[in-house]
Amino acid sequence: MGYADIDKLAINTIRVLAADATFKSNSGHPGAPMGMAPVAHVLFNKIMTYNPKNSNWVNRDRFVLSNGHACMLQYALLHICGYKISMDDIKAFRSIDSITPGHPEAHDTDGIEVTTGPLGQGFSNAVGLAIAQHHAAGEFNKPGFELINNYTYTFLGDGCMMEGVASEAASLAGHLQLGNLIAIYDDNHISIDGDTNCAFTEDVALRFQAYGWHVEVVEDGDHDLEGIEAAIKKCQEVKDKPSMIKLRTTIGFGSLQQNTHGVHGSPLKADDIKQLKEKFGMDPEKSFVVPQEVYDLYHKHGDEGAAKEKEWEQMLSKYAEKYKDEAADLKRRLTGDLPEGWEKNLPVYSPSDPAVASRKLSEIVLQKIHQAIPELVGGSADLTGSNLTRWKEAVDFQPPANGLGDWSGRYIRYGVREHAMGAIMNGLAAYGTVIPYGGTFLNFVSYAAGAVRLSALSHIRAIWVATHDSIGLGEDGPTHQPIETLAHFRALPNCMVWRPADGNETSAAYYVALTSKETPSIIALSRQNLPHLENSTLAHAMKGGYVVHDAEKADITLVSTGSEVGICVDAVKYLKDNHNLTARVVSVPCFEVFDAQSKEYRLSVLPDGIPSLSVEVMSTMGWERYTHEQFGLNRFGASGAYKDVYKKFEFTPEGISKRAVATVDFYKDVQNLRSPINRAFQQLI
Amino acid sequence: MGYADIDKLAINTIRVLAADATFKSNSGHPGAPMGMAPVAHVLFNKIMTYNPKNSNWVNRDRFVLSNGHACMLQYALLHICGYKISMDDIKAFRSIDSITPGHPEAHDTDGIEVTTGPLGQGFSNAVGLAIAQHHAAGEFNKPGFELINNYTYTFLGDGCMMEGVASEAASLAGHLQLGNLIAIYDDNHISIDGDTNCAFTEDVALRFQAYGWHVEVVEDGDHDLEGIEAAIKKCQEVKDKPSMIKLRTTIGFGSLQQNTHGVHGSPLKADDIKQLKEKFGMDPEKSFVVPQEVYDLYHKHGDEGAAKEKEWEQMLSKYAEKYKDEAADLKRRLTGDLPEGWEKNLPVYSPSDPAVASRKLSEIVLQKIHQAIPELVGGSADLTGSNLTRWKEAVDFQPPANGLGDWSGRYIRYGVREHAMGAIMNGLAAYGTVIPYGGTFLNFVSYAAGAVRLSALSHIRAIWVATHDSIGLGEDGPTHQPIETLAHFRALPNCMVWRPADGNETSAAYYVALTSKETPSIIALSRQNLPHLENSTLAHAMKGGYVVHDAEKADITLVSTGSEVGICVDAVKYLKDNHNLTARVVSVPCFEVFDAQSKEYRLSVLPDGIPSLSVEVMSTMGWERYTHEQFGLNRFGASGAYKDVYKKFEFTPEGISKRAVATVDFYKDVQNLRSPINRAFQQLI
Repeated sequence: MGYADIDKLAINTIRVLAADATFKSNSGHPGAPMGMAPVAHVLFNKIMTYNPKNSNWVNRDRFVLSNGHACMLQYALLHICGYKISMDDIKAFRSIDSITPGHPEAHDTDGIEVTTGPLGQGFSNAVGLAIAQHHAAGEFNKPGFELINNYTYTFLGDGCMMEGVASEAASLAGHLQLGNLIAIYDDNHISIDGDTNCAFTEDVALRFQAYGWHVEVVEDGDHDLEGIEAAIKKCQEVKDKPSMIKLRTTIGFGSLQQNTHGVHGSPLKADDIKQLKEKFGMDPEKSFVVPQEVYDLYHKHGDEGAAKEKEWEQMLSKYAEKYKDEAADLKRRLTGDLPEGWEKNLPVYSPSDPAVASRKLSEIVLQKIHQAIPELVGGSADLTGSNLTRWKEAVDFQPPANGLGDWSGRYIRYGVREHAMGAIMNGLAAYGTVIPYGGTFLNFVSYAAGAVRLSALSHIRAIWVATHDSIGLGEDGPTHQPIETLAHFRALPNCMVWRPADGNETSAAYYVALTSKETPSIIALSRQNLPHLENSTLAHAMKGGYVVHDAEKADITLVSTGSEVGICVDAVKYLKDNHNLTARVVSVPCFEVFDAQSKEYRLSVLPDGIPSLSVEVMSTMGWERYTHEQFGLNRFGASGAYKDVYKKFEFTPEGISKRAVATVDFYKDVQNLRSPINRAFQQLI
Repeated sequence: MGYADIDKLAINTIRVLAADATFKSNSGHPGAPMGMAPVAHVLFNKIMTYNPKNSNWVNRDRFVLSNGHACMLQYALLHICGYKISMDDIKAFRSIDSITPGHPEAHDTDGIEVTTGPLGQGFSNAVGLAIAQHHAAGEFNKPGFELINNYTYTFLGDGCMMEGVASEAASLAGHLQLGNLIAIYDDNHISIDGDTNCAFTEDVALRFQAYGWHVEVVEDGDHDLEGIEAAIKKCQEVKDKPSMIKLRTTIGFGSLQQNTHGVHGSPLKADDIKQLKEKFGMDPEKSFVVPQEVYDLYHKHGDEGAAKEKEWEQMLSKYAEKYKDEAADLKRRLTGDLPEGWEKNLPVYSPSDPAVASRKLSEIVLQKIHQAIPELVGGSADLTGSNLTRWKEAVDFQPPANGLGDWSGRYIRYGVREHAMGAIMNGLAAYGTVIPYGGTFLNFVSYAAGAVRLSALSHIRAIWVATHDSIGLGEDGPTHQPIETLAHFRALPNCMVWRPADGNETSAAYYVALTSKETPSIIALSRQNLPHLENSTLAHAMKGGYVVHDAEKADITLVSTGSEVGICVDAVKYLKDNHNLTARVVSVPCFEVFDAQSKEYRLSVLPDGIPSLSVEVMSTMGWERYTHEQFGLNRFGASGAYKDVYKKFEFTPEGISKRAVATVDFYKDVQNLRSPINRAFQQLI
């Protein structure tokens, strides 16, 4: 303890830096940084262990700013600490191509753990980071070697508190007894609509107690630095529960508009900044000033962190002597590379193998690769038996106290919490020692759209095992049958959507998903059995699209995915027998990967001169990019046995053939028919 | 009170009916119906007021089965009550084109209030129904005329309890002090993954108390009918809080597998059903049996409900004498028709009017029409000042006790709860007296994807005011800039996605959204100012697509939406001046509506013989259906001033022209170029 004028100066420096930067960019949120500067100062200068010169040290304490709009707080801290954020970067706040964008982006800015801003996500990421820490500790710590014991801290505001994704994550965190997780709630009573009493009057502390959290309250978060520090230390001592500190602060502290929503999302006016600087004893004529003694104070703390990292490295060396394999495994995991030769475990099939549902094929993959890839950590949103996401010998990730598993367990019981599962997977992946996958029905990946979007934006390798992928789920009916879902996620940049048609395609989907370090994947899997295709190989499928059935002088190319590819193969015979038409069949299990192939290859799959028809039992949107005509389902499905549903909507050899005949007829007079692969210009990417 | 053997018989009849139907369909969920049959019996036979012969009576008690997979419970009850569900319908459970699909669908089945199944939605719909009831009471009740005083009951299980959307809705319901809402939580300790102790160990009762709910606990929900009835009646008496009854039940009560997840989602085996019937004293050889005395018991209660409706109608007649306008208003609202002449209030613009952001144009519409359409009830997920969703004189919908508004208020402060807002809007619309709209940033409509999907599936008129609709929001950056969002919702069946380009298009979007009784709408609106277009009229825009700028012997058609239409108009001049090319410009503010026009009209807008280029600052997905080439953004955006962002990605007259030139060049040798409007065959709809 023992706070002095220098601490006050540091706090006010952060406040004024936030005011200066938002003023200069004429945009941004000064209020929360000004209100949270005291707790941020205590945390970054007295509590947290980190090394600004190496933001990748695995046992660093993690910090997540869930109220990401307050990012000038984080940028100011990272700059003062000595991360790779210069004062010029601060001045470039919210300008094009800066590393200080409007909300923190992990992929672009040193010291940012996860991308935040969409409310509720960061808090849920923090739960993921804390799970990963407990898991890594469970896997790697040995007697005398507490390699992994970092804390995860997160700031959140009223907005995050109101979001359902955070509620889900908080409930799970309480269940999991994540003792190393400390959330600090900026209870400033102000949201954009004004006082929170207009919409948010619940007892937040009581709610968190109901979730099984330890709760502390600090009444004067503006001044009571000792109280803040004491509260955090008390939380650190609670080892069997996550902790939440309810911290009363004044939004925009020091501004003429403090304590109003006027200071939330708009820069202060010039005269307000002037009086602010005067009030704090600073030169009102100067902007973007950090006194040297403030730098010194923070650099001293950073140096202590660097020394701790050095000690830790020494411990790791000793550990490596005693636990060679574990140490090598940890180091490898942190590179993101998979163990050599893991892919030899991927199952391979031939057309004579019996038909199997692709959700089952996915289970076989997991069963076969889980030993080779120890960092694979799975789970399901309470649909384990339907998603088939759990290998037989799996141990659950659970607090040892509840007797249902342990910290090193690799299967997470997410409960019916799809959105939190997505956000937690982002946190798990960000920690560095885990590759997460999670299961639910494809239709309910949409519940997690906010989290999937952030996986894609922040280049996170997370894998969705999305079963029951179409009307083929049958009886559950339209409420559970995806129509728009594939189009939705195919339209999301940097997101691989796979819809494998058989065993080899399923193995290929996993291969590409697991080896793509910077891209999330959604693997859409069937409930119903699928035959293995004649030309399907891992190598073919890994190209995202390939020819399943070729033919000389073809009249049409049928282009399909997943469960419909086999029906297209059947349609080939029907078309020959009934219409004397020759059809090729192409499978495109992943648009994103197919698009990345050479134009020459793509044209070999979807050549000029032959009309093409896509066949997929959901929205046709997006298929026009690959085919001339589209057969799909631009309406909701139906409840019934899956064969009846397919028949109702004519996804049968006959129904496909009817459209194929119409397509051939429609294009018969077109000279030099071009494949849609040919485009007039390149897209921006 | 006073329960007898007949009650036990009725309960067991329901249980066995659920077992028979799931057995016959070889699919479905017998466990929850068997466990909840006692409370359902008490509720439907002793508590609720309804008339099975008129399921539209506005003051009926509402019942929502949030755990929609338990729908055989609801179908059984509705059948026994005498709603339009025959025993043959029960036998057709989960078969194609039946009115008893795998999850309850409001649009198709008599007596179903809202479509449920996706977990958490029904509970949140119930909050919406309860809000609508309080609102209607606030608007229509007069001294001596308590026209509107129904209760809303909802059943929910562990799954709904875990979903974030339900947490959001519960928090808001507590804030709003919705005394007429009674939720009954089936605390059976079993979820699909097994015992809830593997993932869900929070103190649910305490959590609800934290939200401000009244909580009752019934320990023996299997047998204690008196206790159930007493708990419900106690909840009815609590007028200033919503109530939750935590009811311990045994899932699959009576089955050999009771109290295991084996009975959750799979039919009982034949011998299990046999022993069940024997245990209950029924003939094991007979299926689908309802004893006449059970029918009689329920019909008696239904007749009492019919009598109450009659009394109510008499009250309404008297009310109509004294409050003629109010009575006429209520009756009109229940038809779903808008007041005559309301559309005269829609603002109309000419090209000489100053440029205005379309979010502001939306605000002007709301300001001008709110008096003419008294059933319009708006709100925002804590972004009122950004979404501009509140007309000046609006009163907040609030419990009078908090002093911030009253029950008749027409503006709902949803808090930062997008998903609950969506689900609550579905409940509001289902009540019958309200047309809901709600605001958030377009990017965060994705948080509510689960609710929007159900709006579309269940034909609900709900309107999303989705502002900050593109990279044009500028500094907030990629975390807030939609890329995939329009494609996502355009791919959703029965959902209108509008992106108006100017004032008249904004008015047209509202016109079509408000008059489409069976379709939700998302109106995407800009943060930045937009000029008014030369050929934009309400009549044109109401067609979903029209020619903004025509030209003889055009070389190319530029096809665009929203903020990019004006830039395309500028590109026309640039193309003429720099490349001597003649361009037409088409605006397509709504795909869904444009698709509904005659082919002749669509071909007049997008004619054969002229290459076309779409221009929209987000995913190009879906545009191939209308244009030959696409200029869009298949990557994430950037943080910066909006003009800088547009420039970075070349959405300028120059950037558009570059692609237009490439497009003209690419198609110059194509004979008889066909418009993409021409298709080989019709899609299924």
